[in-house]
Amino acid sequence: MKEIGIGLLGFGTVGAGVVEGFLRNGDLIAERLGIRPVLRSIADLDLDTDRGVEVPRELLTTDAAAVIRDPSVDIVVELIGGTTVAHDLIQQALAAGKPVVTANKALLAAHGEQIFALAEERNVDIYFGASVGGGIPIIRALREGLLANRIRRIDGILNGTCNYVLTRMETEHLPFATVLADAQSAGYAEADPTLDIDGYDAAHKTVILASLAYGYWIPLEAVHVEGIRHVEPVDIGYAADLGYRIKLLGVVNRTGDEIEVRVHPTLVSRDHVLASVGGVFNAVMVRGDFVGDTLFYGRGAGREPTASTVLADIADVARNLASDAPRRVASLPRSENPFKTRSMDEIDSRYYLRMAVLDKPGVLARIADVLGTHGISIASVLQKEAKSGEIVPVVMVTHNAVEGAVDAALAAINGMDITGAETVRYRIATGIV
Amino acid sequence: MKEIGIGLLGFGTVGAGVVEGFLRNGDLIAERLGIRPVLRSIADLDLDTDRGVEVPRELLTTDAAAVIRDPSVDIVVELIGGTTVAHDLIQQALAAGKPVVTANKALLAAHGEQIFALAEERNVDIYFGASVGGGIPIIRALREGLLANRIRRIDGILNGTCNYVLTRMETEHLPFATVLADAQSAGYAEADPTLDIDGYDAAHKTVILASLAYGYWIPLEAVHVEGIRHVEPVDIGYAADLGYRIKLLGVVNRTGDEIEVRVHPTLVSRDHVLASVGGVFNAVMVRGDFVGDTLFYGRGAGREPTASTVLADIADVARNLASDAPRRVASLPRSENPFKTRSMDEIDSRYYLRMAVLDKPGVLARIADVLGTHGISIASVLQKEAKSGEIVPVVMVTHNAVEGAVDAALAAINGMDITGAETVRYRIATGIV
Repeated sequence: MKEIGIGLLGFGTVGAGVVEGFLRNGDLIAERLGIRPVLRSIADLDLDTDRGVEVPRELLTTDAAAVIRDPSVDIVVELIGGTTVAHDLIQQALAAGKPVVTANKALLAAHGEQIFALAEERNVDIYFGASVGGGIPIIRALREGLLANRIRRIDGILNGTCNYVLTRMETEHLPFATVLADAQSAGYAEADPTLDIDGYDAAHKTVILASLAYGYWIPLEAVHVEGIRHVEPVDIGYAADLGYRIKLLGVVNRTGDEIEVRVHPTLVSRDHVLASVGGVFNAVMVRGDFVGDTLFYGRGAGREPTASTVLADIADVARNLASDAPRRVASLPRSENPFKTRSMDEIDSRYYLRMAVLDKPGVLARIADVLGTHGISIASVLQKEAKSGEIVPVVMVTHNAVEGAVDAALAAINGMDITGAETVRYRIATGIV
Repeated sequence: MKEIGIGLLGFGTVGAGVVEGFLRNGDLIAERLGIRPVLRSIADLDLDTDRGVEVPRELLTTDAAAVIRDPSVDIVVELIGGTTVAHDLIQQALAAGKPVVTANKALLAAHGEQIFALAEERNVDIYFGASVGGGIPIIRALREGLLANRIRRIDGILNGTCNYVLTRMETEHLPFATVLADAQSAGYAEADPTLDIDGYDAAHKTVILASLAYGYWIPLEAVHVEGIRHVEPVDIGYAADLGYRIKLLGVVNRTGDEIEVRVHPTLVSRDHVLASVGGVFNAVMVRGDFVGDTLFYGRGAGREPTASTVLADIADVARNLASDAPRRVASLPRSENPFKTRSMDEIDSRYYLRMAVLDKPGVLARIADVLGTHGISIASVLQKEAKSGEIVPVVMVTHNAVEGAVDAALAAINGMDITGAETVRYRIATGIV
């Protein structure tokens, strides 16, 4: 059987998962593939930590450049992460004419255009299936399985940490900080959780999905990002009363010649499949003009799920090498002209609003009047009984409205003498059912 | 741009969808693919019916064999269906060295082994992505995206008609016959609904998934099949009270050296993602040893969703032709040794039981005693109040038990003087959460 040499850069969680994949399922992979991928070399600065997998010491090195130069290495697998060292090494590999498999979403979101141009110039493959959705074969589905479709929208639960925190906040009625601390001690959240919690990781993945859908690199700066740090149990509770769950969604929405690319906590109807995605699981809904709505669900992170996708990418590149057909599938198939990115002011959505207002006669009428003046109509109102003269929460769900108008109305309402605190506002997933 | 000639056999619903795909998104497909698939010829016995798509009359013929022989046709797309004419034509195409794309699940479930052997012998591709799950790229995911995994189990909602009927029976509290008649007049069910309603279509798809998962053709006769014809609203109601929905599942379950392959109505916990799959939608859950649980959801049938997958297959074959790399991916990658198929007597499941018994003292104790004697323990009981001496329904959920023991216990209970009617029994999805 033909052998293809693999060089691994980075022997962390996912790297160890890939090694375990070769150890446990190597024969199965070779049999299915008709080619045997052979691990030739692993580079990491730390050669001593026990990763729970047996590797002959002579495969290990601290010299990543040597792995790339090694003539027995046919495919370079970058699992270091980050945007500095990994960026250099991927460029070295591509410049040396070696195909690359990477799971590095942060790097691609920042430098994908330059990296992909280099790969194209050198006529070598770059596969990045594990950069979005961990074990979910979503990149493959979007690029190959749904190739015949114009993509209308994508709605993704793309960060397992956020989904875990929101799920536990809902089921156990706990505040954000408590669940986050718990998640950190259980290993579901990083010591520095900023990248996850504040939505940046989901934004990286959303940019990759959007770019793949539309065939050009969408700049990370074009993405509107809000995280889940400010989500309060009280709003999760009201949302539940109204039939919704709060999820951190990455949204890509095309209408006409404009696209929206945004990441924010969103109310999702409890009847929608996305709402049933709990805990650390991820899911991506893709709407195509032919296929309609599809959804892809699974573990979005972790050693073995991510390794599953890295191994599938290695298999694809190995096939391309064996049949001497590099770049069989373009890394980012060109398809549509760049669109204008719609500003957040102009997006159209339904909204959840929680106001804190004085409970006295005429207050609701004044609020409704301000909303009406801004062209916003109310779909439902939730108000609990309270003593007259107290500040009470009033929760409203609007019909579709333009965000700029909603923000203008809320600025007016927040400035009124009957208002006791800043109005809380969430977008409601619109048009996904 | 390189052109690849397409010959279509069958100009029915899906055939018209494929033609529409070329008309509407042909340029997009060519741009993404870097190759232009060109429709050269369409064979159908009926050349007159308006399919809602514009085709030059000279492309149409009643002579399918001529389409296969046409030297300008590089890929033969079989969308006739059935196991007779389609079988002949696919064999002709493969024998002529032409790759085939087909959506024909019935044919593959019956003759897949012979057809795939012929394709291998002639070194040509046969792609069948649209044979399972319509627009859902599940075949591609299972064969390529999850290649590094040993498949532990598959649970699929694979027939849209059945799921539509069960969903409406639940939400509208209607009997089977009423919903079926409605579905027929709305075009969601065939005039002769047997293939769908009695589970055979789901069985064909389950066989294909199981065969792909384990790398050898599992005979259709090995599949245990029950349809939804006998599902009663009363059981849907009790299942809901207990937190379940009834779904027609195709189940593939491997334990040790045995596999179960079965299709039957199944109680699925309402918290599971599969339970949220309503109406005509399909979904397939796949559990791999590395990836864990993944789920793929979308429209399982229909003109455009199915065409979406046929077009993706055409793109794959076109790539293989363009790079002169036929059979880049084996049609059914060999992977595991054939397993023993477990008999239904030996499967292990939880069960929903609805008994009709006399409401008098000591009856529950007698039933519990029979179940206990057969090693079956009760997890919960639901009994509504009734006048003493009447026949009342008693609903029980068991802990895990072996089906042979459950059936023996039910035979005993059905024969007792306190039993007013045959006990209704459903399996509960076990081990999927």
